[in-house]
Amino acid sequence: VRKTANADEFDIIKRIKQTLDNYSLPKAELSIGDDCACYMRQISCLDILQEDIHFSLQYYSFYDIGYKALAANLSDIAAMGGKPLYALVGLSLPEYVSIKDVQEIFDGMAYLAAEQKCAIVGGDISKSPKLALAVTVIGKTYGKNMLLRSGAKEGDILVVSGTLGLSHLGLKTLSQNLSTDVSLQKKLMQAHLRPQPRLALGQMLLQNGIKCAIDCSDGFLADVGHILDESKLGVILDTEALPLDSQALDFFGRKSTLNAALSGGEDYELIFSASPKHFNRIKALANIPVTLVGTFTKENVGQIQDLNGRIFERKGYKHFG
Amino acid sequence: VRKTANADEFDIIKRIKQTLDNYSLPKAELSIGDDCACYMRQISCLDILQEDIHFSLQYYSFYDIGYKALAANLSDIAAMGGKPLYALVGLSLPEYVSIKDVQEIFDGMAYLAAEQKCAIVGGDISKSPKLALAVTVIGKTYGKNMLLRSGAKEGDILVVSGTLGLSHLGLKTLSQNLSTDVSLQKKLMQAHLRPQPRLALGQMLLQNGIKCAIDCSDGFLADVGHILDESKLGVILDTEALPLDSQALDFFGRKSTLNAALSGGEDYELIFSASPKHFNRIKALANIPVTLVGTFTKENVGQIQDLNGRIFERKGYKHFG
Repeated sequence: VRKTANADEFDIIKRIKQTLDNYSLPKAELSIGDDCACYMRQISCLDILQEDIHFSLQYYSFYDIGYKALAANLSDIAAMGGKPLYALVGLSLPEYVSIKDVQEIFDGMAYLAAEQKCAIVGGDISKSPKLALAVTVIGKTYGKNMLLRSGAKEGDILVVSGTLGLSHLGLKTLSQNLSTDVSLQKKLMQAHLRPQPRLALGQMLLQNGIKCAIDCSDGFLADVGHILDESKLGVILDTEALPLDSQALDFFGRKSTLNAALSGGEDYELIFSASPKHFNRIKALANIPVTLVGTFTKENVGQIQDLNGRIFERKGYKHFG
Repeated sequence: VRKTANADEFDIIKRIKQTLDNYSLPKAELSIGDDCACYMRQISCLDILQEDIHFSLQYYSFYDIGYKALAANLSDIAAMGGKPLYALVGLSLPEYVSIKDVQEIFDGMAYLAAEQKCAIVGGDISKSPKLALAVTVIGKTYGKNMLLRSGAKEGDILVVSGTLGLSHLGLKTLSQNLSTDVSLQKKLMQAHLRPQPRLALGQMLLQNGIKCAIDCSDGFLADVGHILDESKLGVILDTEALPLDSQALDFFGRKSTLNAALSGGEDYELIFSASPKHFNRIKALANIPVTLVGTFTKENVGQIQDLNGRIFERKGYKHFG
């Protein structure tokens, strides 16, 4: 019998989908396989943040943990072009967590929730050997439309918001206790501990005719790969165009910074497709920088190639397997 | 600093409520403090099922675990008089759980979901030291009304569905490996491992003018206590009237059976209030037996007394603290 210890997350999810297909359950408009599910026009997502898998108490404050658990979910809502409505929180508490720590978790979460006008309506708590948060967010999109992984078209360009790689370099800085200068340190901590879900950007994209987006959580190559699978396209990626941070390049070097950008994950930027004629308008309307980094092709479905035809391994940062 | 190991679940929840009150979050119609939350007329709940706290792999099959995780949530929806719409599942997987085990978890869950027409739309999986499920269910009620803990009135009678105590006696049978005869065994296993959420009953109650219900999950006395706190009433309980199982009485004796009924928890029956004139109609319409077990009073707010004026300790089965 195959233990999940040796299994890939996507294999497990595939088996779950197959199992559910054996039952006559009400059908969702969108089920397992995008950033959010959609049922009766309502979008929803659930994200687990597990101690020693997704965070360490050695370098996360309880405030950070609460903030990030909600941020990861809001980023999924953003990737659909949605607005959050309300959240429920499942809190698994080990005995070494105090009531004051619990308060700090909810301070971090409520700060972000208030900023993004998301109610926190309920949940559950349980004892547990390690700290874990399972947060559900329910949201809506305007009208019937959503940004979908399957929405990219041949000839569209591949665009990414903000800067890539800082979150993973932040994790590296924290876990290896590296000393960087103050302004880089601040950027790295912000990126890893307090990522800003791109809700305003996602909503603007949806309202301006964009059809396809995903949030950069597993890692850029892995997430672009999800778009390729669902849109049945290939992509040519201009790695020189990837938005990297100049201070990070100076400190970590090009190779580490590029690797973090390609496979590090948890940047929570939006990766989306646009027709070339849409791009300038989107760029002008966006509240953060957006960068053209590639072109979708009908050929080489599922493959990410660079300008020299080199094929990338579509690997992300794996919490599982 | 007070560790949660020594804290009561309700103290932690109180602190969470206080924390959230410091932020200007969108207000829910109903937040922490009933079986479900309600936001924009939609009801929602989240329940965690944690290995070695809520179940043991020694006597739960994976199918049972999946079934019960959804059943606990559907019971909360039933307690509002609601209908489930869709569920999201957070699955925390230790390495000793196989992909086949995961499939069985979802077989158990999907069986119940199909029966109750609840979609399973998404979720998340994570590695974890112990198996845990955090299930969220979103539902609706008819119109604006809901069954509330705060809905009982002076002079109402206290009613409970089905039979009390079998779930706890089932747990006892499993954990102590007791030998009972086959028909009792079957009843006990059904009650503990495969409880039937009382959705049809809850919906019928709401449609027939009932205002107040809670599901019996923490234990009868604890759950009745929640109604008393929220409705600001007392209650006189006729313990002789409590619906106990005659086979269980024969096997476990009156004292154990009554204790299980009063404090065992996880019966997932509905406890509700009704005006005396409503009761006969409700009884005729109900798809399962409903039993009059007490009378609400304006006096002795928060107290549960027996016919002799003896005050019960409002204790339930504690998973926490």
